Amino acid sequence: MDWRRKDLLGLADVSREEIRFILQTAKPMKDILGRPVKKLPTLRGKSLVTLFYENSTRTRTSFEMAGKILGADTASIAVAQSSVAKGESLVDTAKTIQAMRPDLVVIRHPASGAAAFLARVLRVGVINAGDGQHEHPTQALLDIFTLEEHLDDLAGKKILIVGDVLHSRVARSNALGLTKLGAEVVFIGPPTLLPAEMQTLGARVSYDLDAELPGADAVMALRLQRERQQKGLLPTLREYSRLYGLSRARLQQTGKPTLILHPGPMNRGVEIMSDLADSTQAVIEEQVTNGVAVRMALIYLLMGGGAADVVA
Amino acid sequence: MDWRRKDLLGLADVSREEIRFILQTAKPMKDILGRPVKKLPTLRGKSLVTLFYENSTRTRTSFEMAGKILGADTASIAVAQSSVAKGESLVDTAKTIQAMRPDLVVIRHPASGAAAFLARVLRVGVINAGDGQHEHPTQALLDIFTLEEHLDDLAGKKILIVGDVLHSRVARSNALGLTKLGAEVVFIGPPTLLPAEMQTLGARVSYDLDAELPGADAVMALRLQRERQQKGLLPTLREYSRLYGLSRARLQQTGKPTLILHPGPMNRGVEIMSDLADSTQAVIEEQVTNGVAVRMALIYLLMGGGAADVVA
Amino acid sequence: MDWRRKDLLGLADVSREEIRFILQTAKPMKDILGRPVKKLPTLRGKSLVTLFYENSTRTRTSFEMAGKILGADTASIAVAQSSVAKGESLVDTAKTIQAMRPDLVVIRHPASGAAAFLARVLRVGVINAGDGQHEHPTQALLDIFTLEEHLDDLAGKKILIVGDVLHSRVARSNALGLTKLGAEVVFIGPPTLLPAEMQTLGARVSYDLDAELPGADAVMALRLQRERQQKGLLPTLREYSRLYGLSRARLQQTGKPTLILHPGPMNRGVEIMSDLADSTQAVIEEQVTNGVAVRMALIYLLMGGGAADVVA
Repeated sequence: MDWRRKDLLGLADVSREEIRFILQTAKPMKDILGRPVKKLPTLRGKSLVTLFYENSTRTRTSFEMAGKILGADTASIAVAQSSVAKGESLVDTAKTIQAMRPDLVVIRHPASGAAAFLARVLRVGVINAGDGQHEHPTQALLDIFTLEEHLDDLAGKKILIVGDVLHSRVARSNALGLTKLGAEVVFIGPPTLLPAEMQTLGARVSYDLDAELPGADAVMALRLQRERQQKGLLPTLREYSRLYGLSRARLQQTGKPTLILHPGPMNRGVEIMSDLADSTQAVIEEQVTNGVAVRMALIYLLMGGGAADVVA
Repeated sequence: MDWRRKDLLGLADVSREEIRFILQTAKPMKDILGRPVKKLPTLRGKSLVTLFYENSTRTRTSFEMAGKILGADTASIAVAQSSVAKGESLVDTAKTIQAMRPDLVVIRHPASGAAAFLARVLRVGVINAGDGQHEHPTQALLDIFTLEEHLDDLAGKKILIVGDVLHSRVARSNALGLTKLGAEVVFIGPPTLLPAEMQTLGARVSYDLDAELPGADAVMALRLQRERQQKGLLPTLREYSRLYGLSRARLQQTGKPTLILHPGPMNRGVEIMSDLADSTQAVIEEQVTNGVAVRMALIYLLMGGGAADVVA
Repeated sequence: MDWRRKDLLGLADVSREEIRFILQTAKPMKDILGRPVKKLPTLRGKSLVTLFYENSTRTRTSFEMAGKILGADTASIAVAQSSVAKGESLVDTAKTIQAMRPDLVVIRHPASGAAAFLARVLRVGVINAGDGQHEHPTQALLDIFTLEEHLDDLAGKKILIVGDVLHSRVARSNALGLTKLGAEVVFIGPPTLLPAEMQTLGARVSYDLDAELPGADAVMALRLQRERQQKGLLPTLREYSRLYGLSRARLQQTGKPTLILHPGPMNRGVEIMSDLADSTQAVIEEQVTNGVAVRMALIYLLMGGGAADVVA
């Protein structure tokens, strides 16, 4: 397959074949992460800039490590401290960064659509590292990579995504990607955080976790923002946890060694209990490692690499 | 020409020949920015530290990218979060940094003269990245580089610098540099932001933008700090914009395809209108690209490079 | 000697032989700092992450420069801006970082024991860059390196550590290391900042600086946190300075060219007077340079290097 995209903005408009191609490119990248010398000369003389309008040290660091392992230089722009504080527009900031001649811009922004907007006005490639409540495609790709490592073909597999689906770009990107690969995706959460319309993403909607657990191959817990309670979207955290919190005991209802995923950071004792988070079912650290591999693959592909010459 | 300076503190004491030499060194640097592989081995094993007492992500990032392209390592010290918050003096902080054995320190500081003061007490080279209302020489050099790319020889060219000249280190460094190259520089702004004494910098002073526009080869808009109004130096932003704001319509009075420069970040609708900022007359993004090239040249020269072996 | 430690957590459990081995490894590292090209290929493809829960730009920068000179990549996680602000536990944060596959984690944390705790739960090596009031071993190692450069064998040498010993991890690590090398260490300070129990660290305790100065080979001033006064642990800064502040005049009581050390940043006029800090007796900048060399040695050893092949 020939990779011709300039940007990766979301999984909505990416084909099943493209997802497969990204994940295949991520496999040798993961092998490199296991080597004693984790450095390729592939992207020497290339550079990527992370432009983050929201703090996310883990995602930013994952992109930067991925770029450096491939030999690229990285620069990090945290907008709270930058000229945006001086009232500059998003486009002017992005065009200024582009004029410094990086080869790729990774953006996180609180507004849905910000990454796509930038991708239209910039010549340089853009990766969406999370835009509002819209998409977070690299998180979904690393989740899918992790699921496939354990479940192999995802066609027909039952995958539950549990929690604050309404506000979650992680849930949205995962549903879009997983259904393209043939999985059965069920969104589960309290009605205030899971409007019925959300099934337009290809996922089924349910309010009853225990009813859906039987047969589930994987359960992905979403992080609960504690502010939701203050906004009246939840009765109490205890009530939430009783209905939707994941524990080892509850997971026994699946009748199989179900995988547990979480995008982090976890609220232990709220959406996930410690006995489950620390069990061998949980693949939460693998998700982080796979995140570096998947981002290496995307950086490589968007900077113009051909898949054949990945491994040094 | 032999380059023998340890520091670059301002354009006041730099000769016409030195300015020419820096700009000539910047030309191959700009070519490198256009290559697919933007990396030289020239400064491998050298390092530069940016020591910023004021936030300026764009200037800091420009210096860091310039250093990395040349093969140097960079470290960034943002003083708001550093031990200066613990009451350490500027000299003690700078000597501590020097003791870590970098090859160059780039400093931005709110006090005029801070860079020159450090240059005297440090053995390591110092670049002034803006000191109070004094100088910002790399900005002026990138402006001059940009002007020469479009206007060729600047001797006899009419260049207007419009806005809050009083508080602008950019205006000061530009006037000093441009007049050395033979340009006619006119400072334009309201009397409260442009005292008559400012003509000692070699520039003519005028309060009437429309009267000066005919024949202007380039107009540089300065960023208006909105705090100026609160301090009573301006009536209203609307009034300021009516008298000194730059628009396409107003610029037609020049009678030629006048260049428009802005050091960024822009206040669109205040000192510059969007129709002009987005027109082909505006070279604002070129300024940013040239900033990386000019800083590459300076880092290269101050770290002891000879001009002959720049290009790998 | 074979180096087999995964971590460096403190000098309490490090043997005299190990201290000697680290310092011997630091010597060629310091030579490298004096070269025009300060770069080794030794740790290419390795990476270290600094995880700082307290701000300390100088210590973090020292570790990062040390790593880069050895060819490693570095990533910096300042926890104030990271997901810990979102309530994630220290272990979850550290395991997430480990999952990104760095080769070493450098941690600073306000809780005593935090580094040792992490070292137990992580597979990756950990360097303690300061944990609460417990230890700061790399500071002590650089202090010892500096003392040996000037005093040669420390056996029988009299070394005073003056100030807020109670709250000082620097004092604690130095006493542990220096006494292992046979030095006579005297803790000196006001009784409120120096409980009698502190002699369990192998140091003698005294409240009378002037009585202890005769014969002192080196005096290390500790930084006085101004908050101590507000907590009622000190009468006034003036009183403190009169009793325990170091000046050239006072130091003449030693009867020899006593060395003056300070971990920085200094409160000039409080714990140390400017005439002494700027004198040739003071080796405060050398301490900073040696800090980079000692950290290079530790990074090198903990990343699995054998001493023989340090120098490229």
